[in-house]
Amino acid sequence: MPDSIPADSVGLVSPTTYHIDTPLQLDCGRTLSSYDLIVETYGELNADKSNAVLICHALSGDHHAAGYHSMDERKPGWWDTAIGPGKAIDTNRFFVVCLNNLGGCKGSTGPMTINPDTGKAYGPDFPIVTVEDWVRSQAALADKLGIAQWAAVVGGSLGGMQALQWAISLPHRLRHTIIIAAAPKLSAQNIAFNEVARTAIKSDPDFHDGHYMAHNTLPKQGLGLARMLGHITYLSDEAMGEKFGRELRSGAIQYGYDVEFQIESYLRYQSTSFVGRFDANTYLLMTKALDYFDPAKKFNDDLNQTMAQIEAKSLVVSFTSDWRFSPMRSREIVNAMLAAGKSVTYAEVEAHQGHDAFLMPIPRYLEIFASYMNQVAGEIKA
Amino acid sequence: MPDSIPADSVGLVSPTTYHIDTPLQLDCGRTLSSYDLIVETYGELNADKSNAVLICHALSGDHHAAGYHSMDERKPGWWDTAIGPGKAIDTNRFFVVCLNNLGGCKGSTGPMTINPDTGKAYGPDFPIVTVEDWVRSQAALADKLGIAQWAAVVGGSLGGMQALQWAISLPHRLRHTIIIAAAPKLSAQNIAFNEVARTAIKSDPDFHDGHYMAHNTLPKQGLGLARMLGHITYLSDEAMGEKFGRELRSGAIQYGYDVEFQIESYLRYQSTSFVGRFDANTYLLMTKALDYFDPAKKFNDDLNQTMAQIEAKSLVVSFTSDWRFSPMRSREIVNAMLAAGKSVTYAEVEAHQGHDAFLMPIPRYLEIFASYMNQVAGEIKA
Repeated sequence: MPDSIPADSVGLVSPTTYHIDTPLQLDCGRTLSSYDLIVETYGELNADKSNAVLICHALSGDHHAAGYHSMDERKPGWWDTAIGPGKAIDTNRFFVVCLNNLGGCKGSTGPMTINPDTGKAYGPDFPIVTVEDWVRSQAALADKLGIAQWAAVVGGSLGGMQALQWAISLPHRLRHTIIIAAAPKLSAQNIAFNEVARTAIKSDPDFHDGHYMAHNTLPKQGLGLARMLGHITYLSDEAMGEKFGRELRSGAIQYGYDVEFQIESYLRYQSTSFVGRFDANTYLLMTKALDYFDPAKKFNDDLNQTMAQIEAKSLVVSFTSDWRFSPMRSREIVNAMLAAGKSVTYAEVEAHQGHDAFLMPIPRYLEIFASYMNQVAGEIKA
Repeated sequence: MPDSIPADSVGLVSPTTYHIDTPLQLDCGRTLSSYDLIVETYGELNADKSNAVLICHALSGDHHAAGYHSMDERKPGWWDTAIGPGKAIDTNRFFVVCLNNLGGCKGSTGPMTINPDTGKAYGPDFPIVTVEDWVRSQAALADKLGIAQWAAVVGGSLGGMQALQWAISLPHRLRHTIIIAAAPKLSAQNIAFNEVARTAIKSDPDFHDGHYMAHNTLPKQGLGLARMLGHITYLSDEAMGEKFGRELRSGAIQYGYDVEFQIESYLRYQSTSFVGRFDANTYLLMTKALDYFDPAKKFNDDLNQTMAQIEAKSLVVSFTSDWRFSPMRSREIVNAMLAAGKSVTYAEVEAHQGHDAFLMPIPRYLEIFASYMNQVAGEIKA
């Protein structure tokens, strides 16, 4: 909880829910006749609505990207390091929009929402949405807000995939795309980790084929396991080593199966805190959106041809110790953009924090990010 | 099943169980008054018993390292690529000994064994054994076989750690140690993966705090998850990509949570086949032996000082794409040996198969291995 709101914070914020009643046809073939999106905005939209920046969230993110919901809130929004007055995404210059994605569990329509056709929560019957579905729903939100073209669409990890998909699917509707710690599609290893996480959730006896709410229970063990595993892939071996090493909680080996090493204790804590604030059906759905993401599929599996659709200028950022989506994966995006003759800036940032580096206050990263966004802001007329 | 036994196979083999009644004091403080070790041997022990080679197995390995138990056996022993007449560990020249480790589930005393004090299977009450305990029990086996000094102690992964521990703990009892795809201790990330595996097993409602046999059930889901996760760490991202890529089983995306990608199907298969042949309490115990392995701990955390104990000559082998125990970890061993003035040969083998490379017929690897073992054989008098 902040004693006082820091000067470079967007301050106290509260979300708004937008009801969108234009039917949304999903990739899976089903249609949502209407849906809600919960949104936070920071900064002011200028007169010609040309300074809007869309923030896309990652697997377990939400609409609360910056600032505080109350003076009692322990931590600010998930990307507060990058969003605020004078920060990389400068809220003195940009109107920043962040939403909880469709299928989420933080207020947008998703598995926890009441299905109007049945009067019960969707649960596992909520359709599996794709990154393209998200882009369509975000475009509907832009329409609602009167934003014809984003100054930039920005995201890290799964958020970066949405930023890339925007540039490919709706090239006229953004001037810049900023793709951080992402990949043009998941590798077999990436999918394998997701499948272990899903198997953990689905095999939890409290999962009840996704109908756990009806059984008045939660698949805590399964979701907790998924989160523990996720956390390993978010951190580098080096960062874990520096943070926890082989330190023992009690100083001596116990020859038992309780928590002994500090790293075990950390994972246990991450697991417990996550299961209290995230929905298992949403977790399943988000991992599937990741697995399915493969924009080149519509272009004969030719990534160069895919990138040829883009009209926006791009910034691509990767982190040296990220082994979930390594620099090699970002270079695939960059190389295809270059082959397609597109304007792209690429920064490979030296960082030991692993995939999570995209959320962290790494000076070099934030400087590059700020410098690029400064250029984006310079193009805005009003 | 082999139509006929290949010429370079050790052929049909059968194990022998040795009962050792010298009490074994374990690192945890408990004592086993007696225990059984199940053993396979290949080749002939020479007159002065100087041609014996000990093979130490990894996490889920056992005593069946080479040859076939019957003409119906589908696959030969787990290290048949390296052990046999004319192979790297040439059974025309060496007497090869491989045992199932104490705490195992393939015939040596372990959690599935009847505890003589209670008349029931040990189950979770079987003591957690360490790599040092294994070396002590293997030394007792050597005594039983009349082998005063091994020509070489050889192992990959957790087996390599035993080979290293032999050289440190009982320097006079081996002339060579061969340490493949190992590390001087686990990193925080390594421990983290083990902890996720253990949590999966322990949180399976069929685990019953390890007393699943008494409940006439098995923690299949938990052990299966542990195995799926293990498999991801045994293969490289590249090898998984080459083998499975993003191929779909049915050719098209199903928008559901059943197995879709080939990699998911492969992991599911690995999981199912493993739970039918491995014991969950043994799995827990083996992961703990890995976590606890840290020979430098007794030497002020000084690896150079630790290596100063060694009298054997060493061969250390790593594989470029191994991210479980990367070449960097092998170099830690090699550098400490060199700093201690020891004789060590190091080979970093270009291989895309990941950690599992140590089990595979990679020509360059097997040539280096054979060349070194040829030298070991050349030193034998008889």
